[in-house]
Amino acid sequence: MKRLLRQHPLPPEEKHLYTYYIIMDKQTTIARRTDRLRRLMAETGISAFVIPTLDPHNSEYLPARWAAREWLTGFTGSAGTAVVTCKAAALWTDSRYFLQAEEQLSDIPFMLMREGEEGTPSISEWLLQQTDAGSVTGFFDEMMTADLYESLFRPLLPERQAKACPDRLLNTLWTDRPALPSSPITIHPVSCAGRTAAAKLKDIRTALCEKNGDTEPDLFLMNDLSEIAWTLNLRGADIAYNPFFIAYLAVTREGGILFCDPARLSAEVKRHLAASGIRHLPYDGWGKALEDAADMAWEIHMPATMGCNVTKFCDRKRVEYSLIESPVPALRAIKNEAETAGFRRAMERDGVAMVRFLRWLDESVGRGGESEMSADARLTALRAEQERFCGLSFPTIAGYGPHGAIVHYEADEASDAPLKPEGLLLLDSGAQYEDGTTDITRTIALGPVSKEERHVYTLVLKGHIALSRCRFPEGTTGLQLDTAARYCLWQEGYDFGHGTGHGVGSRLGVHEGPHQIRKNVRACTLLPLQAGMTVTDEPGIYVRGRFGVRIENTLLVREAGATEYGRFLTFEPLTLCPIDLRPVDRDMLTPGEKEWLNDYHHTVRRHLLPLLTDEGDRRWLEQATQEV
Amino acid sequence: MKRLLRQHPLPPEEKHLYTYYIIMDKQTTIARRTDRLRRLMAETGISAFVIPTLDPHNSEYLPARWAAREWLTGFTGSAGTAVVTCKAAALWTDSRYFLQAEEQLSDIPFMLMREGEEGTPSISEWLLQQTDAGSVTGFFDEMMTADLYESLFRPLLPERQAKACPDRLLNTLWTDRPALPSSPITIHPVSCAGRTAAAKLKDIRTALCEKNGDTEPDLFLMNDLSEIAWTLNLRGADIAYNPFFIAYLAVTREGGILFCDPARLSAEVKRHLAASGIRHLPYDGWGKALEDAADMAWEIHMPATMGCNVTKFCDRKRVEYSLIESPVPALRAIKNEAETAGFRRAMERDGVAMVRFLRWLDESVGRGGESEMSADARLTALRAEQERFCGLSFPTIAGYGPHGAIVHYEADEASDAPLKPEGLLLLDSGAQYEDGTTDITRTIALGPVSKEERHVYTLVLKGHIALSRCRFPEGTTGLQLDTAARYCLWQEGYDFGHGTGHGVGSRLGVHEGPHQIRKNVRACTLLPLQAGMTVTDEPGIYVRGRFGVRIENTLLVREAGATEYGRFLTFEPLTLCPIDLRPVDRDMLTPGEKEWLNDYHHTVRRHLLPLLTDEGDRRWLEQATQEV
Repeated sequence: MKRLLRQHPLPPEEKHLYTYYIIMDKQTTIARRTDRLRRLMAETGISAFVIPTLDPHNSEYLPARWAAREWLTGFTGSAGTAVVTCKAAALWTDSRYFLQAEEQLSDIPFMLMREGEEGTPSISEWLLQQTDAGSVTGFFDEMMTADLYESLFRPLLPERQAKACPDRLLNTLWTDRPALPSSPITIHPVSCAGRTAAAKLKDIRTALCEKNGDTEPDLFLMNDLSEIAWTLNLRGADIAYNPFFIAYLAVTREGGILFCDPARLSAEVKRHLAASGIRHLPYDGWGKALEDAADMAWEIHMPATMGCNVTKFCDRKRVEYSLIESPVPALRAIKNEAETAGFRRAMERDGVAMVRFLRWLDESVGRGGESEMSADARLTALRAEQERFCGLSFPTIAGYGPHGAIVHYEADEASDAPLKPEGLLLLDSGAQYEDGTTDITRTIALGPVSKEERHVYTLVLKGHIALSRCRFPEGTTGLQLDTAARYCLWQEGYDFGHGTGHGVGSRLGVHEGPHQIRKNVRACTLLPLQAGMTVTDEPGIYVRGRFGVRIENTLLVREAGATEYGRFLTFEPLTLCPIDLRPVDRDMLTPGEKEWLNDYHHTVRRHLLPLLTDEGDRRWLEQATQEV
Repeated sequence: MKRLLRQHPLPPEEKHLYTYYIIMDKQTTIARRTDRLRRLMAETGISAFVIPTLDPHNSEYLPARWAAREWLTGFTGSAGTAVVTCKAAALWTDSRYFLQAEEQLSDIPFMLMREGEEGTPSISEWLLQQTDAGSVTGFFDEMMTADLYESLFRPLLPERQAKACPDRLLNTLWTDRPALPSSPITIHPVSCAGRTAAAKLKDIRTALCEKNGDTEPDLFLMNDLSEIAWTLNLRGADIAYNPFFIAYLAVTREGGILFCDPARLSAEVKRHLAASGIRHLPYDGWGKALEDAADMAWEIHMPATMGCNVTKFCDRKRVEYSLIESPVPALRAIKNEAETAGFRRAMERDGVAMVRFLRWLDESVGRGGESEMSADARLTALRAEQERFCGLSFPTIAGYGPHGAIVHYEADEASDAPLKPEGLLLLDSGAQYEDGTTDITRTIALGPVSKEERHVYTLVLKGHIALSRCRFPEGTTGLQLDTAARYCLWQEGYDFGHGTGHGVGSRLGVHEGPHQIRKNVRACTLLPLQAGMTVTDEPGIYVRGRFGVRIENTLLVREAGATEYGRFLTFEPLTLCPIDLRPVDRDMLTPGEKEWLNDYHHTVRRHLLPLLTDEGDRRWLEQATQEV
């Protein structure tokens, strides 16, 4: 699944927002909401108000409760920041959302600010232009992180001040604001996690100690929901597709404190916590706990992505703290044996569902009547039949023909295209299983393909193989490995705008840091890949208005021996599903590429054939994985 | 030429240092020098003294006058820092010099500190251990840059202070210290430079203005000799292999001031300077000029690599200044049409010399009597016959057999190996011509080669070709491109420790920033390559104790068209010399690689055949560049 180039999935809880537009005129609704915000601003002496797309847990996907930017502007993209002054209103978003934002903002008074385009002011620059010296810019404290606060408001100092407004003020504007989510919290068994919560807490303490010049901080407060779920071996369902639950976790010298609605904790979960040395307090109990810690002169650390609700509270109460980089993503990224075993089992089940789906697709498209959405539904149903299935890991992208070239395409009733027995269907999907998370893209020939489709498909396959079979020395970063996937595309003037690979969680988020393989110079691409990391391999080419190709496996980084030149690593594909051979131009493949493809298909057959009970499915797989 | 993995060349001026060791016992000499330094330290209240390998111009190769670290320790490597306390003495150097330093420090009281090895303290850490609170660490102000000062001494504050000692104090210890070099200064014709000094000064002012928030600083003081030579279209010969002259240059709003011994400026050079709006003052005139500028409340900028002789002077005199990144390297890196035309002409002459040399080598080795040093001498003589030849651009590396695997090998009387009609000779060499600088490595089969030699040679060739023919989108950095050269080496567990490519100056230093192609995450490898840049392509494999292979061309970055996916760049090889086909395993080459090789050799023939007057040379070239 491509990170950052998809539409924000619409969790069911958010659907109610749109009923508004049916009942009321959208323009009136947005105007009324903006007016209310401006009245609040006037009452509190605030000249400008900033509403980013953020929750207090710095989540990639927001619970509906914190989707205030969407509520205010009607813009449904997954990224964007609204800024309102008494005279003007503007929305910043990035290139993948320009078209959507133009449409959704067309008849409302929010100006579209195209991030990254020449001449677009930054939010700070715009605030400097729009507000007078001495003015105050406000924000809701739960929708601002400490690091974003620094970068947004530092340039305004000292003439202009920033003011954190308590999140509860938003309730007075947004009267039917959704409640905090409260899905069931379950134990992620240690047989899947491979390590107890107590052991993980110890690992975190050791890592904190190393980061802190060999002295252990007394308290480390975590707000990242994925980090908390991983640490405690607990899972929830508060956010669509992500098995997280809303909480804070304080790791202390002797144990820890989970801040979470106690009504959500079953007796079993409470025993699990107690056995891990974890007390529990209400969700908003962190304030008192931090004050107590400060009274004991404890050294308090928290990540720079902590919400301003916490940091501004500390500033007000004179609770001293240091902002550090959380040690959890680096620990979480290296999967242990139980986790990789879980991935392998989940991939087998996912592979079985994919094979049954692909056979069904082959047999159904010719009959007519199928569409992007019906194919999606069929695949989801086949996955749901698998043991330990918990849901999808992200909304399926099923893009047929020209839709395959829209990198953040998600079919809906209006766009749903019928599938015809020709051309290419791009299908990016994945599931959550109790023992692992999957993420796979296949591009499938539904019938005859054009010469251009065949050529582009084979180029993407070459890029996929070049990365997948790459052996590389320890220390090699995602930025360096990215070149392996793109080299042969570049030679012919092709390229793609999204990342080539992201980590995949172990029954956690389908996008997991800290590492990425992509062509942009960022902290995440300058980290060396390490044995035990998962990473996707998903190059693509998108021919505007015609078709798109992406081929994605989830890989595991493995040791590949030492020579006199150093220690080497390589990848093992975890995903088990045939790569469609029908659109391959075999003349474009080198002997080494053919060997990789045959080896991969041999592995797919070896794992899946024993699991396929239907003789027709077995025959289809034998046929689909024949030697090239 | 590999940067950073070679021994420091020994310029003729430095040879006299070694006469000492003939007359006197080395141990006694070093002890006497260290004693004198300690006496000076006692007199000035200094507890520890740091002597890095630096001159006031942050030069890659030092004039003998500033080779104080070498004078004090007897260690001749190009990198190292000596630290002396009243009780102990230590020398820090990096892995490429461990063996040499062990040998050269064996019987003298300097401890070897192996940089980068587990357990080796940094210089700052060692000073914290070895000196008491309240103590002072000294250094000679001309042998310390502002940025090194920060990184060395910041960790010692506030308990320990650092003190800059005037460089002239060194004269009292080093009584026969070499004088400032004073080679002739000549004008680099605008026909070669492509842009007048006045125009370059204007470019620098514009770039300074952009860096400074659109206000132009009043004075920018430059100390980098390559930057000064480039800016003024002047050349010298103060440093071996590098056409530089010792000077400072102040770029001001209206013109500039060159600080350089006036006796060195001919009437012609003075007219050239005047025409460019440049005044001239003595070499040490910068102090008065900076004070005058401060009196006028000028805004003064200088690079962070400025010597502490200047920055500490400013601090004492309360002259305010800002340390910035010099804009010159980025301007200098993009070669204009006159410069690329000069490169092409220089490469033709260099190619003629190389072809004549390679033919001679083929015909001579069998007869016996030739050696690494005689081959080097022959090649140098053939280059010297070429028009506009000004000298070598670095000391030739001629490594036969096992010597080829020593990456910083330089043959001397003791090591000089006879050349036999078998195995591989690695030859890395280059020259300075009036219109361009060359840098080329060829690995030559002197007769039959082993299966391993053939395999390794072909792998290196594949790496060289993969980088050379790479097409890549604008914005691609040296770190990303590095993977192109190493991918096929990595697949078989090979790698090399040096960089893959460095910029080459236009009749300037053979190593030129700001960009590099290498596998290390550094500022220089995170810069996008741009059209007009030169860069070497020099992968290698070094099989310890047996042989080494490196194949190097100098390339020019060129535009390669725009597609709907972006604007692309590629490389054009500037170097014109056959790549030895005899050690190639043709079965390992893809059709695309063979096509590249044939195209390259076609280009070599097209350029060089018309220039070769000897029929034998022409026949040799035809034979050497046959189709594969």
